[in-house]
Amino acid sequence: MREPILLTPGPLTTSLATKTAMLTDWGSWDSRFNQLTASVCHDLLAIAGGQGSHVCVPLQGSGTFAVEAAVANLVPRGGKLLVLAGGAYGRRMADIARYLGREHSLYTTADDTPPDAATLAMLLHDDPAITHVGLVHCETSTGMLNPLAELAAVVHAAGRRLIVDAMSSFGALPIDVAALHIDALVASSNKCLEGVPGMGFVIVNQASLAASRGNSHSLALDLAAQHDYLQTTGQWRFTPPTHVVAALRAALDQYLAEGGQPARLARYAANAAQLQRTLGEAGLALFLPPALQAPIILTFHAPAHPDYRFATFYQAVREQGFVLYPGKLTTQETFRVGCIGAIDQAEIGQACHVIISTLRQLGWLA
Amino acid sequence: MREPILLTPGPLTTSLATKTAMLTDWGSWDSRFNQLTASVCHDLLAIAGGQGSHVCVPLQGSGTFAVEAAVANLVPRGGKLLVLAGGAYGRRMADIARYLGREHSLYTTADDTPPDAATLAMLLHDDPAITHVGLVHCETSTGMLNPLAELAAVVHAAGRRLIVDAMSSFGALPIDVAALHIDALVASSNKCLEGVPGMGFVIVNQASLAASRGNSHSLALDLAAQHDYLQTTGQWRFTPPTHVVAALRAALDQYLAEGGQPARLARYAANAAQLQRTLGEAGLALFLPPALQAPIILTFHAPAHPDYRFATFYQAVREQGFVLYPGKLTTQETFRVGCIGAIDQAEIGQACHVIISTLRQLGWLA
Repeated sequence: MREPILLTPGPLTTSLATKTAMLTDWGSWDSRFNQLTASVCHDLLAIAGGQGSHVCVPLQGSGTFAVEAAVANLVPRGGKLLVLAGGAYGRRMADIARYLGREHSLYTTADDTPPDAATLAMLLHDDPAITHVGLVHCETSTGMLNPLAELAAVVHAAGRRLIVDAMSSFGALPIDVAALHIDALVASSNKCLEGVPGMGFVIVNQASLAASRGNSHSLALDLAAQHDYLQTTGQWRFTPPTHVVAALRAALDQYLAEGGQPARLARYAANAAQLQRTLGEAGLALFLPPALQAPIILTFHAPAHPDYRFATFYQAVREQGFVLYPGKLTTQETFRVGCIGAIDQAEIGQACHVIISTLRQLGWLA
Repeated sequence: MREPILLTPGPLTTSLATKTAMLTDWGSWDSRFNQLTASVCHDLLAIAGGQGSHVCVPLQGSGTFAVEAAVANLVPRGGKLLVLAGGAYGRRMADIARYLGREHSLYTTADDTPPDAATLAMLLHDDPAITHVGLVHCETSTGMLNPLAELAAVVHAAGRRLIVDAMSSFGALPIDVAALHIDALVASSNKCLEGVPGMGFVIVNQASLAASRGNSHSLALDLAAQHDYLQTTGQWRFTPPTHVVAALRAALDQYLAEGGQPARLARYAANAAQLQRTLGEAGLALFLPPALQAPIILTFHAPAHPDYRFATFYQAVREQGFVLYPGKLTTQETFRVGCIGAIDQAEIGQACHVIISTLRQLGWLA
């Protein structure tokens, strides 16, 4: 049987060229590995538009490790974080602040409603204690795109600092950290860059990082110390995930060869449009208004049939070679279909056929 | 050119079977990946002798991330950690306690002197505030083996709890966590198990883990929460390093097929004996007394020649296909040669030849 296609928000389907880059063992002290790390960080910084203003600090672990490191390092112990929480990942950033004992508040919006710039301006005006704002660019729990540029402008105008969790958007959607005055942008290897999981990274303003020394609650997650060590020695402070870094280098080579961010966005947007159109014609409706839907992962209402069970649907589709993603909403029955990874219209077309025919065979779709 | 052989304490040379296990993408929500995680944890627990008393909690990141998680979770905020510091990794455990704000003290010994059981008993007797003892089983900074069984007996007799950093020994040297009353043992995928780097794990006493809920300073490093989530869902709490886990599964299959811990130890001991004998005959002396030297990584005195430079030596050996490791002692010029990884007498013989002939050609060895 063919390896299944992952229609998930990452880990996702990667190219064979990316995976075969893991067939070499690297010495973590060797200069060739140091060069690999430096070239990866150089390219990530360029994709973020941060040359001159920011640095790229890689970190072992999942993306959440890097989000925690960014919040812990940048929000000082006397600071306060306002989290724009429109889904599970926004709430996770608030959880981090709670673990850290950092003062924080939430601006909570519904799953289908992005935060509003005017409300954010008012919240910042009313609470001078807020030093930092935390925002999830694309909420993977629904696939909703938040209006980053508008919100970033409000944060900058109010003299506060912005931390963006761009885990599932970075590399596909355009982000310019310098132009948007983003203090720190966090992403990982295994989303739109199409690497494998095992490392995150923070694109962080140089001055903010320098001012953050001593803030970290954690040895392992101390971003400033990781950066200082990389600068001094060329090496990660603790054992790096060497094969994951090598795979990301290969994935970045393919990213640049494909045409960079515009090409990646165009492919994903075509995947998303095809999914929305084909499943829509069969009677499966998007949860979000199309204008709010990022071309990353799409949330669909489950069929209204009373016998519908996601686990049964998932398993039947899985047996035909496609891995779907469950919904993450508590109030409504949904399922998610990712459109990122090393896939294009051929795979999306096959997936749509399998999804529709399976639901029809189960008697849950007319 | 052939891929170089890594004579390092990890990341190390892995087998092709281990690396090719990374040529599959896994959905982190898929039941087949959950089964992979469960089988890896099952085998790690069995190797540690912890079935019935302990559980295995995997963690994203390097081994240091798992050491920090173990200390943060198990040593309560009102507890005190005595660190037996005979090298860089012991001192790192004390650094962790400092970041965490946990009270701690050090029992420091010289690089070539293991901690003494009677002294430890006295220290525990004299300071009733000490709740936990932290020990590095094999200090990779020299390769020194600490007398785990003796020290563990003292800790148990004194009614304290023991956290063991067994990063570079686990899988090769015998350790029975139940018999030795070890509260937590920490290791990683990329040492004697011969997997690739990107995850650590903690073999932790069930009751201690249950009592640790709420202790963690960190969301990402919360061991108790990671365990609870794995128990409930079969999944890691945050994106797992899927390819690294798959490589570890393949490495464990080979470990068991080779004959498990006794066979692994026998191969490494033969590698170490061959290195010591061949380099010794050429005039390169071990730093440690042989009785203290673990068959993991060997520290040699550098040749006494005044022109000796490690970087030159390293580069010349590197060009012939072998990656050495620098010394980590501040007071004496040394270099290190790892004898772990998917290597045996053929590779060790070639490495000895290259090391000796290179030093002779450089005029630094007679």
